[in-house]
Amino acid sequence: MRRAAQLGFGGIYVQPDVGGSGLSRLDTSVIFEALSTGCVSTTAYISIHNMCAWVIDTFGNAEQRERFCPDLCSMEKFASYCLTEPGSGSDAASLLTSAHRSGDHYVLNGSKAFISGGGDTDVYVVMCRTGGKGAKGISCVVVERGTAGLSFGKKERKVGWNSQPTRAVIFEDCVVPVNNRLGEEGQGFSIAMKGLNGGRINIASCSLGAAHACVQLARDHMMVRKQFGETLSKNQFLQFKLAEMASQLVASRLMVREAARALQENRSDAVSLCSMAKLFATDQCFNVCNEALQMHGGYGYLKDYAVQQFVRDIRVHQILEGTNEVMRMIISRDLLTDL
Amino acid sequence: MRRAAQLGFGGIYVQPDVGGSGLSRLDTSVIFEALSTGCVSTTAYISIHNMCAWVIDTFGNAEQRERFCPDLCSMEKFASYCLTEPGSGSDAASLLTSAHRSGDHYVLNGSKAFISGGGDTDVYVVMCRTGGKGAKGISCVVVERGTAGLSFGKKERKVGWNSQPTRAVIFEDCVVPVNNRLGEEGQGFSIAMKGLNGGRINIASCSLGAAHACVQLARDHMMVRKQFGETLSKNQFLQFKLAEMASQLVASRLMVREAARALQENRSDAVSLCSMAKLFATDQCFNVCNEALQMHGGYGYLKDYAVQQFVRDIRVHQILEGTNEVMRMIISRDLLTDL
Amino acid sequence: MRRAAQLGFGGIYVQPDVGGSGLSRLDTSVIFEALSTGCVSTTAYISIHNMCAWVIDTFGNAEQRERFCPDLCSMEKFASYCLTEPGSGSDAASLLTSAHRSGDHYVLNGSKAFISGGGDTDVYVVMCRTGGKGAKGISCVVVERGTAGLSFGKKERKVGWNSQPTRAVIFEDCVVPVNNRLGEEGQGFSIAMKGLNGGRINIASCSLGAAHACVQLARDHMMVRKQFGETLSKNQFLQFKLAEMASQLVASRLMVREAARALQENRSDAVSLCSMAKLFATDQCFNVCNEALQMHGGYGYLKDYAVQQFVRDIRVHQILEGTNEVMRMIISRDLLTDL
Amino acid sequence: MRRAAQLGFGGIYVQPDVGGSGLSRLDTSVIFEALSTGCVSTTAYISIHNMCAWVIDTFGNAEQRERFCPDLCSMEKFASYCLTEPGSGSDAASLLTSAHRSGDHYVLNGSKAFISGGGDTDVYVVMCRTGGKGAKGISCVVVERGTAGLSFGKKERKVGWNSQPTRAVIFEDCVVPVNNRLGEEGQGFSIAMKGLNGGRINIASCSLGAAHACVQLARDHMMVRKQFGETLSKNQFLQFKLAEMASQLVASRLMVREAARALQENRSDAVSLCSMAKLFATDQCFNVCNEALQMHGGYGYLKDYAVQQFVRDIRVHQILEGTNEVMRMIISRDLLTDL
Repeated sequence: MRRAAQLGFGGIYVQPDVGGSGLSRLDTSVIFEALSTGCVSTTAYISIHNMCAWVIDTFGNAEQRERFCPDLCSMEKFASYCLTEPGSGSDAASLLTSAHRSGDHYVLNGSKAFISGGGDTDVYVVMCRTGGKGAKGISCVVVERGTAGLSFGKKERKVGWNSQPTRAVIFEDCVVPVNNRLGEEGQGFSIAMKGLNGGRINIASCSLGAAHACVQLARDHMMVRKQFGETLSKNQFLQFKLAEMASQLVASRLMVREAARALQENRSDAVSLCSMAKLFATDQCFNVCNEALQMHGGYGYLKDYAVQQFVRDIRVHQILEGTNEVMRMIISRDLLTDL
Repeated sequence: MRRAAQLGFGGIYVQPDVGGSGLSRLDTSVIFEALSTGCVSTTAYISIHNMCAWVIDTFGNAEQRERFCPDLCSMEKFASYCLTEPGSGSDAASLLTSAHRSGDHYVLNGSKAFISGGGDTDVYVVMCRTGGKGAKGISCVVVERGTAGLSFGKKERKVGWNSQPTRAVIFEDCVVPVNNRLGEEGQGFSIAMKGLNGGRINIASCSLGAAHACVQLARDHMMVRKQFGETLSKNQFLQFKLAEMASQLVASRLMVREAARALQENRSDAVSLCSMAKLFATDQCFNVCNEALQMHGGYGYLKDYAVQQFVRDIRVHQILEGTNEVMRMIISRDLLTDL
Repeated sequence: MRRAAQLGFGGIYVQPDVGGSGLSRLDTSVIFEALSTGCVSTTAYISIHNMCAWVIDTFGNAEQRERFCPDLCSMEKFASYCLTEPGSGSDAASLLTSAHRSGDHYVLNGSKAFISGGGDTDVYVVMCRTGGKGAKGISCVVVERGTAGLSFGKKERKVGWNSQPTRAVIFEDCVVPVNNRLGEEGQGFSIAMKGLNGGRINIASCSLGAAHACVQLARDHMMVRKQFGETLSKNQFLQFKLAEMASQLVASRLMVREAARALQENRSDAVSLCSMAKLFATDQCFNVCNEALQMHGGYGYLKDYAVQQFVRDIRVHQILEGTNEVMRMIISRDLLTDL
Repeated sequence: MRRAAQLGFGGIYVQPDVGGSGLSRLDTSVIFEALSTGCVSTTAYISIHNMCAWVIDTFGNAEQRERFCPDLCSMEKFASYCLTEPGSGSDAASLLTSAHRSGDHYVLNGSKAFISGGGDTDVYVVMCRTGGKGAKGISCVVVERGTAGLSFGKKERKVGWNSQPTRAVIFEDCVVPVNNRLGEEGQGFSIAMKGLNGGRINIASCSLGAAHACVQLARDHMMVRKQFGETLSKNQFLQFKLAEMASQLVASRLMVREAARALQENRSDAVSLCSMAKLFATDQCFNVCNEALQMHGGYGYLKDYAVQQFVRDIRVHQILEGTNEVMRMIISRDLLTDL
């Protein structure tokens, strides 16, 4: 990962004055697609790390940017994004982790679930409740590894994403300086959602990389595997299937790139396009990878073959960074108010 | 139609020196999408007329361009594209219509099927066999209305596309001057295929317009139709369905626009992208329109409501300008040789 | 139709003492599937007629059964089922047509929409409101052709189902004897729903017939149509598509037959199974017919070929007798209470 | 497993005189569905064991039946089915494992791939080539554990089916008595295919059990998981999704049971129905389980929750016992010859 950081992948869309690469969302999408053809799980973690770095770069004050961003961009330190809780997934605004003000500190209590990197990382960007119910009562604070009262759950056993640990993150009277708060009190939900817009493009880009790799794996398999006296590449049903897969990949890629451009340009349809891109690309690319597995026959089911890992790894992309059901909610809300 | 021609829609991507608008493929796609939100069938005919005008503009010599293009661009005259035969659809290279050279004339015999505008139009761009079997034996000649030996079948009754007539075009010892031939002998199949690349983008753009209109019709219906005490817009299943439809529309549009750009720039992946765009957009947009019909309930089945006409009209887009099965063939051939 | 009645198809599951054939729901399904391979629209009307006859046979008293059933079974008279209103489709319990009691008569006011046979038929089985809001305020009365105050809207122009007229049925101070009421006051909604259980099996059976015919049409077309030097039957993609279509047909048929058995045996899962069968079979069979159309290429789009009519005719089966969205509602309600 | 055998599950459709339970194919399907709601992988192995026992019971002579069946029915011994080879999967008739006759022995050379139980089981039912090319040259012999020249590959690491080992089975000058041959020389392919008809019903039944369990898991999750202030069971999109899943499960079950009946009755459409059932049920049930996983949100991706194991375990059912592509081949062959 640190070698990746040397290439500028620790803070791709973080500003250069704090060590970032200062690239665009579109560049970022291209990079994550390319990296994911190698390993989806590792790339996905890097994308979450980047989202955290961007949040601090964008919503942090000068001191905070200086304090955290350089180490994140060089990956001297790693970050985790702490929004989801055991009882609040899709309904993020109902989160319960509390941060009571006590002088110039917040005292955090509560727990976060499904935290990528949790327990192994250094910097936790935590959404917590400093005010009343709902989105307006949420703030965003940075909690550093080693803070008293910060602990972690067991390492989760998962279907995929196995190159990165996932753990619950637990706060028990965890005392954090007020100057670790990013932005104002009550701004946390807005920060979280803005981070997720980019996060959705990133994770969708990871799905693109998987589908890209799987189309190539399927094609390569078809060129060499023989049945009925000729290679599978002569099999019309599989030819046509491969054509559909490639078309779905291209459509997915265009969606993600368009959303990246829209977000970069801060277009009014950016939120909706990010949601469409995430919904469309993660669904279609899962299908592409799953069809590629099928084309491999029995070999597709063996862990010695890469195709199954792509299928397992990207399955969770339809679930996280907002489930694809939540994406439909966001898109339809937009359609039914101001088309 | 002539009023549309006054806006420059008779020869959108024909060069200006012969009366064309000189616009790009991308412009063309935008125009056809917009027109199709009004009437798919009329727009689709205009798109075929444009394809013919482009073929003459591109492959005709100076005299031919001067003779035909201005009248086509102003829509003083209308054109039809004559490739398909009763016995050769997907397998266009096996066409049988013969053109025997006799002095400075060709004598045509054979018949063409499913010809849009056939019988009502003035200029027929005809693929016919001047040589031996296969693609290399095919030439392209222009046959004008009123030529002896040119006749037409009955007007076909169709599921949609009813604002334009479709007839067989029949050649019985039909004598055409050799200087009506576009390009060289044997170049006809290549001309036909080049015309179809643009034709595929155009027809896919017509599907975009239909889907665009249907998403709006569905949305409007949801905003006013009440069931169970509230408008359908409160119905989550329909909300989410609308979100999926809009996402499919956006993905389709991006595919078509990208293919248009690729064709305009003569990119090496243009043929494959045109095929992907046609396959993807005509399939997805049919689905979008069909779902919009469903959302209208019983009203969707009545001819007084526009939604059903979009469904009927664009159904044929999955079939013509190369069936979507042929699109898969073209795409997979490309994938399995030089990915 | 009267010749069909001579074969016993006017009252297939009506009891023999009033002229019915006394057959089972399963027999009925087999008959409607078979008839629909000829004409879906005509068969669908016959199925609605049968539903009406069954309602009178089942919920009518001895006098009513004697008065109406024999003429319906012989198809001397034809019947229409009047539930849907312009403002209440899926939400049938909110219907507005009122029936005020005045001595030994009801005075009906209101209108019914999408009535199959409306204007051409003799006996109207009408759900109307004799009491307060909701399902409990609804009663079922029979209105005969020629009754003062009974009139009809214009003949609707439809995508399919064109062998039968569809019109609005309008009641303006329409006076109907109280002894035309079937069952008790307030029982109308329950009667309507029970009628629809059978109606759903019937209409799903009509979809089976269409799909059955289309699989055969597609197969026959594949056996004779040549492209690329051999019949389409040698084309693997189409072979596999045909296999999928046949499998979907068989699965649909098994669903419909199972629901018919369950309803006949009055099993506790009958309502849910009827809804599943209607949802599943009408969706899958539409897909089968639509794929068969695609296999016909351009010919599939011409009205001279039967395949397009099956597509147009069965499209409405996903909408009527309770939309497929309502089917999901019924099924899920059952699943989420007492699985 | 031996406790399962005490319940009669070691030879469910083996005849009672050699220790079998003598039940029907339909009974077998019901049993495997029920067992699979607990563990698909274990049940699937039991189903393969049963297929082997049936092959010996049906094609073995009296001595062979006596020698092998009782121990298999009691599961004192376990069996493996050895058809697939590294180079022959779908094209089983091209298998290369050779069995040269040498006196009253065969000498086997070659290797089998993806063998369930391989290395841990006692009785190997092996298809091998005693004659010339193609299906007619294949015979079926039983090889017992401990035979010289019989060895095994490494234990494969798989996406699922992890309660049973899968290994290559390798024959190097492996000497087997001729009286271990089931049936005549050249009858092996026919035996293998007959075994697979039942095998397909069995494996499809295992998919039913998984889908059955997953519909219940999804339902249970919906009843307790709260988001946006109410349980997911109030969420219409998920309600309707559950309704679709349940409908797909019921349709799948009816297909499998019908195929079981057809095979039991030796009906002429049995082979086609077994293929349809396998294609339909394994595809639909995978979809059901995968949707159930999605409904679980992030929890669905954790190995602590059962739903993901069902998804992983049944993924391979679309591949083995003849891939679903081979099923389409069998079905279409039947349709295009003698509909």
